[in-house]
Amino acid sequence: MNLKELLTARSKEAWGLYLPHISLDCVLFGFHDATLKVLLLKLKEQDTWSLPGGYMEKEEEIHAAAGRILSERTGANNIYLEQFRVFAELNRSESFFNDYPDTLWHKQRFISVGFYALVDYTNVEPVIDDLGEACEWKDVNELPEMMMDHRRILDEALITLRRQLNYKPIGMNLLPEEFTMPELQKLYEIILGKKLNRGNFYRKMMAYDILDKQEETRRGGAHKAPNLYKFNLEKYMAALAEGFKESW
Amino acid sequence: MNLKELLTARSKEAWGLYLPHISLDCVLFGFHDATLKVLLLKLKEQDTWSLPGGYMEKEEEIHAAAGRILSERTGANNIYLEQFRVFAELNRSESFFNDYPDTLWHKQRFISVGFYALVDYTNVEPVIDDLGEACEWKDVNELPEMMMDHRRILDEALITLRRQLNYKPIGMNLLPEEFTMPELQKLYEIILGKKLNRGNFYRKMMAYDILDKQEETRRGGAHKAPNLYKFNLEKYMAALAEGFKESW
Repeated sequence: MNLKELLTARSKEAWGLYLPHISLDCVLFGFHDATLKVLLLKLKEQDTWSLPGGYMEKEEEIHAAAGRILSERTGANNIYLEQFRVFAELNRSESFFNDYPDTLWHKQRFISVGFYALVDYTNVEPVIDDLGEACEWKDVNELPEMMMDHRRILDEALITLRRQLNYKPIGMNLLPEEFTMPELQKLYEIILGKKLNRGNFYRKMMAYDILDKQEETRRGGAHKAPNLYKFNLEKYMAALAEGFKESW
Repeated sequence: MNLKELLTARSKEAWGLYLPHISLDCVLFGFHDATLKVLLLKLKEQDTWSLPGGYMEKEEEIHAAAGRILSERTGANNIYLEQFRVFAELNRSESFFNDYPDTLWHKQRFISVGFYALVDYTNVEPVIDDLGEACEWKDVNELPEMMMDHRRILDEALITLRRQLNYKPIGMNLLPEEFTMPELQKLYEIILGKKLNRGNFYRKMMAYDILDKQEETRRGGAHKAPNLYKFNLEKYMAALAEGFKESW
């Protein structure tokens, strides 16, 4: 079946199953080889890429819906997800379905709730469903052309992530359990898209009081073995819930 | 007419006019007499208070809908509004309409988009519509009991406002044009709900580089006349759009 036949076949079921006018789009970030990646997919017969997305069942909680959508795409459960913005512009998606009948589920006006998630790259097994022809990690600095307003949704997710660096910890699902300060700094630099001063980074990070310095250093290499750190789970979770003490 | 008759009469029109399943709730903050206020209203025959809210017309932009809803309530136009979160829990509002027929517009499941706004208290003229019996400013520290999940929406708006103090300027619509550093500090303290150190506040605020110190000081009073400041409009707007340079 081609895309039109597949969408038409799904439309009737969708009207019975989901809340109309509300969709979800998920921006799934992973960190790998010192680059920030995002999971994108490509529908059949399309040149442009899209975010993993879907709809909310009539009696489903929205967080559960986002988890279900991502789990179908990645095989991963219990992904840490957060809603960050609603995308509601008139015609943000409608015009894509110009050639379809007005009764098509997908052609109605959708208000899309954007979620973002941070995952351990190695835990994810991208899944291509029958509507798609590709599902891949893409470098956020080398994004392909995207459909509808999905590029804007992705950009807003990244802005949200950057802002959150000012009041929330990050790294728990992105770094290995033990890491060096330069590795943590690299993660911040990649999210922020700019270089940071090493001394300032160290002081600011230590002031957040979420790291435990390990007794062991990392072996191997010609230079002095670098110190290793772990996140202090309790302090990290408290900072995640309440924000950093260091902020206002 | 009582509330039930009024809602029933409006229901039919609402089905034709608005997008189903999507509502908006607005948390309108004002600053007055060194307290943070929020605009609440009370429906007829109810003991609890609610946020100003409404629905989105089928072809209306969501931001315009929020502006329209607040303008109807306050007589003020061009209010600075921002969406901050979606409230989507199953039965967050439905059970309030248990005694009504299932065809009632208001009884369907609603995903509510929360907006918050900061206004010049003196520009607002609270309006009581025919469904209501009160529309008043309430001190955020002395809130009355609220209906449905409106208290949670208000609390989340306040959390958002607090977080934004870490990366965005605030005060433009809340303070008079010229103000002293202690007055600005007071605004921060009221939003944060805690005392701040005077020296730290001064240094951090000056580092944000959004204030112009005025030549004139404030006259009157026995003590040394305090310095007056104005927001530098250009720098303030740049910081609003891009975040503070001082942050990560």
